[in-house]
Amino acid sequence: MRDMFHEELEGINTSLLGMAALVKIALEQACVAITTADLAIAERVIAGDENIDHTQHDQDARIINLMARQQPVASDLRALVAALRINADLERMGDLAHHVAKLARMRYPNKAVPEILETTINDMCKSSASIMEKMITVIQYRDLTRALEIEQDDDEMDRLHRELIATLLGDNWTHGIETAIDMTLLGRYYERFADHAVSISHQVYFLVTGEYAVPRV
Amino acid sequence: MRDMFHEELEGINTSLLGMAALVKIALEQACVAITTADLAIAERVIAGDENIDHTQHDQDARIINLMARQQPVASDLRALVAALRINADLERMGDLAHHVAKLARMRYPNKAVPEILETTINDMCKSSASIMEKMITVIQYRDLTRALEIEQDDDEMDRLHRELIATLLGDNWTHGIETAIDMTLLGRYYERFADHAVSISHQVYFLVTGEYAVPRV
Repeated sequence: MRDMFHEELEGINTSLLGMAALVKIALEQACVAITTADLAIAERVIAGDENIDHTQHDQDARIINLMARQQPVASDLRALVAALRINADLERMGDLAHHVAKLARMRYPNKAVPEILETTINDMCKSSASIMEKMITVIQYRDLTRALEIEQDDDEMDRLHRELIATLLGDNWTHGIETAIDMTLLGRYYERFADHAVSISHQVYFLVTGEYAVPRV
Repeated sequence: MRDMFHEELEGINTSLLGMAALVKIALEQACVAITTADLAIAERVIAGDENIDHTQHDQDARIINLMARQQPVASDLRALVAALRINADLERMGDLAHHVAKLARMRYPNKAVPEILETTINDMCKSSASIMEKMITVIQYRDLTRALEIEQDDDEMDRLHRELIATLLGDNWTHGIETAIDMTLLGRYYERFADHAVSISHQVYFLVTGEYAVPRV
């Protein structure tokens, strides 16, 4: 029985990686859509979000089913609880990519991002891609060193977010209120994206150690 | 054994209501802080957020412990999974109240909300208070009619959010970029607050029926 359980648990981990791969694609495409005003790619992210939502529901059902059939305790139970939580974070990250794509579509055929903020938003895209890459390693190998690195990447994202706000408030900002609103929300989406990655790294920490990672204030 | 389980489950539901009560207080105080520039009350919300976080961790540990000791299936297991998720939503609602309070503190001794938006923000406060009230009933009595009402209240919150953005973009907006950024984020916090209440009503629907509520697109 136990062996079958671990086989199924392995299957759930693989599914989590599949879910993460979907979110990674959504994020990459959202970055292309927002930085190059590519409507076709924006539409692809928007249409793909439903698939991410369904994947979460299916996997959650599978996890709960496994909890009910086998009766896991200790680290096995923690692995399943963590899987539920990681799934929820991934689904939300997909939503955020979806929001980014919707902003690109709303401003099409114009670029949503004015030139003065192109570097900052490009850096946010790079930072989120790096976070995503590490997050997948953390989920796959339960790599706590990488989990810690994600917290540092999150600090970098927060710095970029402050840079973005400083640009909006600077004397060189000539793009008015509407674009300032867009960029405020865009910055917030990327910031939240990184926060969810941190949350996932905390879940993996919990899964491995049974302790919650000390939340940073 | 079963009876003891249901007693403990009842205890967990009571704790969820306690958590919801903490969030309700945080939300009410955050509304006072942001609309009247009351620094003392803002500080109280900010200091109280740690307590909400700790309460979530303690309750999650208790839920997982109950899962491990008893081996719930079917609706009992669903109740515990739903409790984990509701707890996570409540914790995040506490964070959002905390963000509102931090904005009030950042702009003190000035009011964060300019006169032209006072009515809209007051309405958002009222709407969120009404949502909170219903949400507590939904958790306490598993009231699916009220759960449905929360979705309608969420529509009202979305309408207020659009009203807020329209004011920022209107000809009468004379408060510049910084206040527009503040109000964009404030509107987002209330909008997300309502979204989490909808998520909780979906969890209660899942708990009662075993099906996920059809997510509205």
